[in-house]
Amino acid sequence: MEALLKNILEDSRRFIKEGAVANYIPELAKANADNFGVCVLSNDNQRYCLGDYNVPFTIQSIIKPIILLMALTDTDIARVRALVGVEATGKPFDAFNYSDQALTGEHINPMINTGAIALCTLIRGRSYEEKFSRLLEMTKIITDNPTLEIDEKVYLSEKNTGNKNRALAYMLKAYNMIDADVEEVVDFYFRVCSIKVNCVDLANIAFLLANHGENQKTGERIFSAQYAKYVNAVLMTCGMYDGSGEFALKVGIPAKSGVGGGIMAVAPNRMGIGVYSPALDKKGNSVAGIKALEGLSKTLDLSIF
Amino acid sequence: MEALLKNILEDSRRFIKEGAVANYIPELAKANADNFGVCVLSNDNQRYCLGDYNVPFTIQSIIKPIILLMALTDTDIARVRALVGVEATGKPFDAFNYSDQALTGEHINPMINTGAIALCTLIRGRSYEEKFSRLLEMTKIITDNPTLEIDEKVYLSEKNTGNKNRALAYMLKAYNMIDADVEEVVDFYFRVCSIKVNCVDLANIAFLLANHGENQKTGERIFSAQYAKYVNAVLMTCGMYDGSGEFALKVGIPAKSGVGGGIMAVAPNRMGIGVYSPALDKKGNSVAGIKALEGLSKTLDLSIF
Amino acid sequence: MEALLKNILEDSRRFIKEGAVANYIPELAKANADNFGVCVLSNDNQRYCLGDYNVPFTIQSIIKPIILLMALTDTDIARVRALVGVEATGKPFDAFNYSDQALTGEHINPMINTGAIALCTLIRGRSYEEKFSRLLEMTKIITDNPTLEIDEKVYLSEKNTGNKNRALAYMLKAYNMIDADVEEVVDFYFRVCSIKVNCVDLANIAFLLANHGENQKTGERIFSAQYAKYVNAVLMTCGMYDGSGEFALKVGIPAKSGVGGGIMAVAPNRMGIGVYSPALDKKGNSVAGIKALEGLSKTLDLSIF
Amino acid sequence: MEALLKNILEDSRRFIKEGAVANYIPELAKANADNFGVCVLSNDNQRYCLGDYNVPFTIQSIIKPIILLMALTDTDIARVRALVGVEATGKPFDAFNYSDQALTGEHINPMINTGAIALCTLIRGRSYEEKFSRLLEMTKIITDNPTLEIDEKVYLSEKNTGNKNRALAYMLKAYNMIDADVEEVVDFYFRVCSIKVNCVDLANIAFLLANHGENQKTGERIFSAQYAKYVNAVLMTCGMYDGSGEFALKVGIPAKSGVGGGIMAVAPNRMGIGVYSPALDKKGNSVAGIKALEGLSKTLDLSIF
Repeated sequence: MEALLKNILEDSRRFIKEGAVANYIPELAKANADNFGVCVLSNDNQRYCLGDYNVPFTIQSIIKPIILLMALTDTDIARVRALVGVEATGKPFDAFNYSDQALTGEHINPMINTGAIALCTLIRGRSYEEKFSRLLEMTKIITDNPTLEIDEKVYLSEKNTGNKNRALAYMLKAYNMIDADVEEVVDFYFRVCSIKVNCVDLANIAFLLANHGENQKTGERIFSAQYAKYVNAVLMTCGMYDGSGEFALKVGIPAKSGVGGGIMAVAPNRMGIGVYSPALDKKGNSVAGIKALEGLSKTLDLSIF
Repeated sequence: MEALLKNILEDSRRFIKEGAVANYIPELAKANADNFGVCVLSNDNQRYCLGDYNVPFTIQSIIKPIILLMALTDTDIARVRALVGVEATGKPFDAFNYSDQALTGEHINPMINTGAIALCTLIRGRSYEEKFSRLLEMTKIITDNPTLEIDEKVYLSEKNTGNKNRALAYMLKAYNMIDADVEEVVDFYFRVCSIKVNCVDLANIAFLLANHGENQKTGERIFSAQYAKYVNAVLMTCGMYDGSGEFALKVGIPAKSGVGGGIMAVAPNRMGIGVYSPALDKKGNSVAGIKALEGLSKTLDLSIF
Repeated sequence: MEALLKNILEDSRRFIKEGAVANYIPELAKANADNFGVCVLSNDNQRYCLGDYNVPFTIQSIIKPIILLMALTDTDIARVRALVGVEATGKPFDAFNYSDQALTGEHINPMINTGAIALCTLIRGRSYEEKFSRLLEMTKIITDNPTLEIDEKVYLSEKNTGNKNRALAYMLKAYNMIDADVEEVVDFYFRVCSIKVNCVDLANIAFLLANHGENQKTGERIFSAQYAKYVNAVLMTCGMYDGSGEFALKVGIPAKSGVGGGIMAVAPNRMGIGVYSPALDKKGNSVAGIKALEGLSKTLDLSIF
Repeated sequence: MEALLKNILEDSRRFIKEGAVANYIPELAKANADNFGVCVLSNDNQRYCLGDYNVPFTIQSIIKPIILLMALTDTDIARVRALVGVEATGKPFDAFNYSDQALTGEHINPMINTGAIALCTLIRGRSYEEKFSRLLEMTKIITDNPTLEIDEKVYLSEKNTGNKNRALAYMLKAYNMIDADVEEVVDFYFRVCSIKVNCVDLANIAFLLANHGENQKTGERIFSAQYAKYVNAVLMTCGMYDGSGEFALKVGIPAKSGVGGGIMAVAPNRMGIGVYSPALDKKGNSVAGIKALEGLSKTLDLSIF
């Protein structure tokens, strides 16, 4: 397995130069394009890590499945589903919705920014401070990493420049889909997107989803199996932005990418995988990261199809 | 002429019931749907007024041609045109722009909210307070009415609920089309939309545009003839929202409507007209107001085509 | 006037190189980009022609106002309006309509291909052969040129390659907007677009529209004044494709362009103008042609605003 | 298992009344809304059928995965992928594509009509007659049913009224994505959509996809495992039209529906399922059919997530 990972990383590394580090958030542009790491946690309790697996980066959109999980846990499927639909939109993750009709939940899903921001309002907490504490706490449990914290520079950089997300949130409010103070919601969203993680953390998230919410070491149930399947299904159809169809063909397992360069991928009942390589393709997915997952999927026959 | 106006008002009044008073701003919903007035100022220095011509209402989108005029006056055609295009969008006035490409000036025009908000940033002033004073002052001069003031209730109502405009403004900022503080710009926009006017005021605006910026009593030039024609041309193609084509057929002169129920219509070199009837059609235009203008245009052969 | 035209042509000629001859119909690509002509017919019965004013080219979209006129004459405003709306679409002339709802007349106008094709079905005639004879006859009368005929090569070239128009026509049929045999309608449309005209012919069309359907030499009424104004109004808002707003600013009179390189422009009650220069801008309008009209409008103060 | 199926059919039957039989093809409207059948083929070589499992209906869009399989088999992944993308479009299956840019393969996928029609041109054969024979033959092999034939009435009904598909095909040709004679391609498409099948046939298609192309009785390989996974992945993200996301949540396996009322569903390595109930929801999927699959998935834990 270690030799396998080594080969895959070597083969995939040359694709780094086909991508570019995200620059829409100034602070993200400082990432080192050469960083490339991977971590695999398998159901036989083995952990394989290679390369820059412990280099920290911001979680960005990979927080979306956790937001979805908390919204499900704090309310229920009916309320989550009424607020945010589950169909792919055929558009980029930060697209302004356009429809001849009023915006409704049917136009969005939990993996595009509009949908994720809407779901933030369902997380329990008397204040956004409390909501944040609860989500951070949950993320620490899911990653099995009690030291998680946010990257203040990225958070502030995003807060300063994240006007598209503000626009999306005001649109949600204009159509009465959310009632919250927009500045509070987007501040919350910018903070949770700025949580620093590494490949091991991502692999832990994926591993828990692969085991449908049950901690394999302790036997403890962190979230319900039904919600895990809800999240995995949404990841399959919408997790890799408008590259989800291609990813289903080439890798064939639920996954979520972030513009920080991370991808977490869930092989149900088999393994959780975290990869990191910050050079992105035009759709916002890590180029070498996808290549590495493609190699892993082919060699280990991970596709669920 | 007075008999003519009387007939037209009588004929048009029955169309009021085909429309509905705007309710997207709570305070606007309180308007009296039965109010119906008209004022005509003609180049032979006659003034004809009838019905509820002196009932005040908020100017709303009819401020857009004045915003455009001031942006032109404070900068020049090149800067205005670079920021905001002049093509009809084929969409409602408050539509979220959707395009496969990044938002640019080519996608908007000065008569949709996005375009008008962008142009607010070109008005001179060290602060939005000063910009507001200057625009209010200009509006007083154009309407020949030094007593104009804003309707505080409508302003606050709009400020509380105008999240679609906030979303549009953040979108402009996200695409680097404006640099201003969004909350300041939209506050400015809400304030100028809340200026209280009546049919006489609207007729004065139209009369000055009909005479290409020259005050017919004093001979004073208020704005350049070139800018007046710029405004009139834009009104012709985009002034009545996505009902501008229909209005060109039926009335045939440049005009601008507002969701407050007013319409100001410009018969070049002949007359300026203001009408008021707050029941709107689905596109946001005063139903009976359009009917009255249609009657006037037919009887007086006002069409410029 | 002759000196004026000469100056304008000289000034405008250098803009030819900013455009490109249409190539989407193979046969059109053979046009000589250096051809540049103009013809003006004024209400004082003067005719001024200059440059390549008698070089023939295909009428292309400039047939659209004549199709509209015949559809109006053969039915009435209500039927024309029910089938084809009058609002600018904000999209290119050959765009595929996209809407969340079923396609209706409200989504199109007589100056985009979809609308023009729909209107062809309203022209009277037991067969498309007869419809064609009648439209050609009418065009001969309007242009005061009994020798008009079609350019067989362009017609066949367009018939062979005009699949976008076929797609648009089948879409009209799929939404039950037309009942005709699609191949017959588009064949008719390709034929009438291939009528060969020159600047004098275009000036005659424009001159008759400028005089609201009354032949100034004979006093004969060719079409009703009401229909002339209908056409002029539609030309103002939609005649120059998605460049109509810009044209309203810069020239300020109703006009129609064709991808053959012609533009006919209507100065109501004053003059009719035909220009020809086949190098087009990205929106499909003759670059130097627009410049020449801009010069004429400024010098002669033609703007109706 | 038989008792289980009986319960599921009884529970699901009441949802029939929430749907409506397709009426866009006149002949389809004659289907009996009360028909409801199911067939399950499992990897332990058991076959369970219930209700109207042997009532024939037309395959409609369920032919799309077979078209895709043949296109893959007759060319290769690179050519198929270059012609037709794999991303969900967020739009109905028969939507007219709208984009600011020219239409390319990236805008479509094999499960929407535009994509399926494009792929028909890749099937080998000197004539469309031969292509048809080959596709029918392949369908007979996949369904293990040598008696398959087309429903002439539905075929002719669709041929007479299928103008939206003609429009889509001409659009493909206009953008140089296909070179074929449009009438021939759509005639081919109408014919293959009119193949009569029943629940057992659909279960056989699904069963072969579940076993990645290998006939479980004979051990014969019908198509490559790689292509089976390609098809299954595309079915997961796009197989149930713009209801694919919801289906992934509720049922969790690749599936394809047709407006004839059938659904075939693939539980990889476990079973193939065919259901039939012609009352459709607004997205074009069998209402009771989805409910039955939901019941089966929950009881047998079929979800691949």
